[in-house]
Amino acid sequence: MHDAPSSSLITDSDHPLIQRFRSLQTASGRAKDGCYVIEGVRHVFRATQARVPIEQLFVAPRALKSPAGQKLARHLRRAGTPTAAVAPDLYRRLSLAGDPQGIAAILRQTWTPLSEIRSGNSHGWLAVEGVESPGNLGTMIRTCEAVGAAGIILIGHTADPHDPAAVRATMGSLFSQKLVRTTAHEFTAWCKSQRLMLVGASPRATRDYRALRYKKPLVVLVGSEKRGVSDVLTQACDALVRIPIRRRGVDSLNVAVAAGILLYEAFDQRPSGANASARAIPRA
Amino acid sequence: MHDAPSSSLITDSDHPLIQRFRSLQTASGRAKDGCYVIEGVRHVFRATQARVPIEQLFVAPRALKSPAGQKLARHLRRAGTPTAAVAPDLYRRLSLAGDPQGIAAILRQTWTPLSEIRSGNSHGWLAVEGVESPGNLGTMIRTCEAVGAAGIILIGHTADPHDPAAVRATMGSLFSQKLVRTTAHEFTAWCKSQRLMLVGASPRATRDYRALRYKKPLVVLVGSEKRGVSDVLTQACDALVRIPIRRRGVDSLNVAVAAGILLYEAFDQRPSGANASARAIPRA
Repeated sequence: MHDAPSSSLITDSDHPLIQRFRSLQTASGRAKDGCYVIEGVRHVFRATQARVPIEQLFVAPRALKSPAGQKLARHLRRAGTPTAAVAPDLYRRLSLAGDPQGIAAILRQTWTPLSEIRSGNSHGWLAVEGVESPGNLGTMIRTCEAVGAAGIILIGHTADPHDPAAVRATMGSLFSQKLVRTTAHEFTAWCKSQRLMLVGASPRATRDYRALRYKKPLVVLVGSEKRGVSDVLTQACDALVRIPIRRRGVDSLNVAVAAGILLYEAFDQRPSGANASARAIPRA
Repeated sequence: MHDAPSSSLITDSDHPLIQRFRSLQTASGRAKDGCYVIEGVRHVFRATQARVPIEQLFVAPRALKSPAGQKLARHLRRAGTPTAAVAPDLYRRLSLAGDPQGIAAILRQTWTPLSEIRSGNSHGWLAVEGVESPGNLGTMIRTCEAVGAAGIILIGHTADPHDPAAVRATMGSLFSQKLVRTTAHEFTAWCKSQRLMLVGASPRATRDYRALRYKKPLVVLVGSEKRGVSDVLTQACDALVRIPIRRRGVDSLNVAVAAGILLYEAFDQRPSGANASARAIPRA
């Protein structure tokens, strides 16, 4: 990126583009603007690969050391992506990354209305009720991509998947997952109309998560770190399962770990599993 | 805790106890002192339950709102635990918790030498080579407790399990797990001498993690977030397994999620699993 003329470098922290970047690091700024920020070579590369339009690219020429990152920035600029060159010092102050890589982008948030989702067409969904930690949410989105889920349904007050800590934890998987936000009421109505299997995780369930025969179309539901799945949604579930905890007095696993264990069992259950021969898989 | 006389409140941030608290929030301070800090009612309660000696208790009377926390603090002080009352403002500045609960403690680090571990006596271990994020490490310790592991073996340069972010993520499970730190060389020699099964996680492995018959005594090995398991340790493994990734172009799961999925399969494999009838479980 040494071909960017240094005279065009943004050095002023009051520059409108810098103010917008900062604003998108806050929940209120994101809500008002409808966009969000991604940082780092991997994220910008994955967005480009997924053909997600980049509204604004930021490059800090001297901070962007990776040859792959430099090539990516050149490619995007030549393809007409609005690109701002930022002074490295200013970029480091802006960046929330532990190790700022000198490249970031503003993307538009994409939400899918629940009413547009036909569960039958997809492998399955993760539904999340009230998870508080953006890092946990981002990690779950990453697992959803790995296990081949269609997306993630956010119910009630959950962390924001476009929070910088959530985006960072997704490791670029956000672009492959559909994002839906809804209420508990709307969600239960949708589940009924779709005739899908809704399986909730609960430490109070009696059934081991491996003792259930998961059927497509499937939604796996996890609750918040502190309170788990609400009573309303617990009652809406077709089945409740628990991950056994060996040590007495221990209440739970980290919610992103629990979701990972469940998703891998539910989405990828072996025909040789516990109840394999009991029922055939219905047509999805 | 309103029975603590307000005149004895520490308000000075230069007080030796406050300086020690701050120093233990840093890696160099912990290395020099050999202790670490836990914060919050749950952590102090779990330490007390596990009969871990508390070197120094800190209570911020007006910030400690939870009745259970107040009772715990009273109990500990009456049992002779050295207790310092800290002004709420000062405590809030000291605390690294998102929601400071007004109670913290200094505990001595406890490390178990690898040479003292007889693998045959235990359910199994998680070995971790070079994990960088304290949050990931703490989350793995929490999973180890849940799945009934004996402890966690840290190989090479890993995050510090006594880092405040790691301790927070353990949710109090640190006290039930043995902690070992060692080198790759010492670890491979120990594995051979113990005649245990060492199973490494690798995205390049060809065997699905559920296609292996896990035998006790067992050590599950995961590598760092960026580089995975090193070549030296890969060669020392009795088996390598991978967690299948459905989406092409996606390289990995979060390391704490991957460890959780593997540990639940390896430590708790169903007799009805894929290769169940192939071999009997050897006496541990």
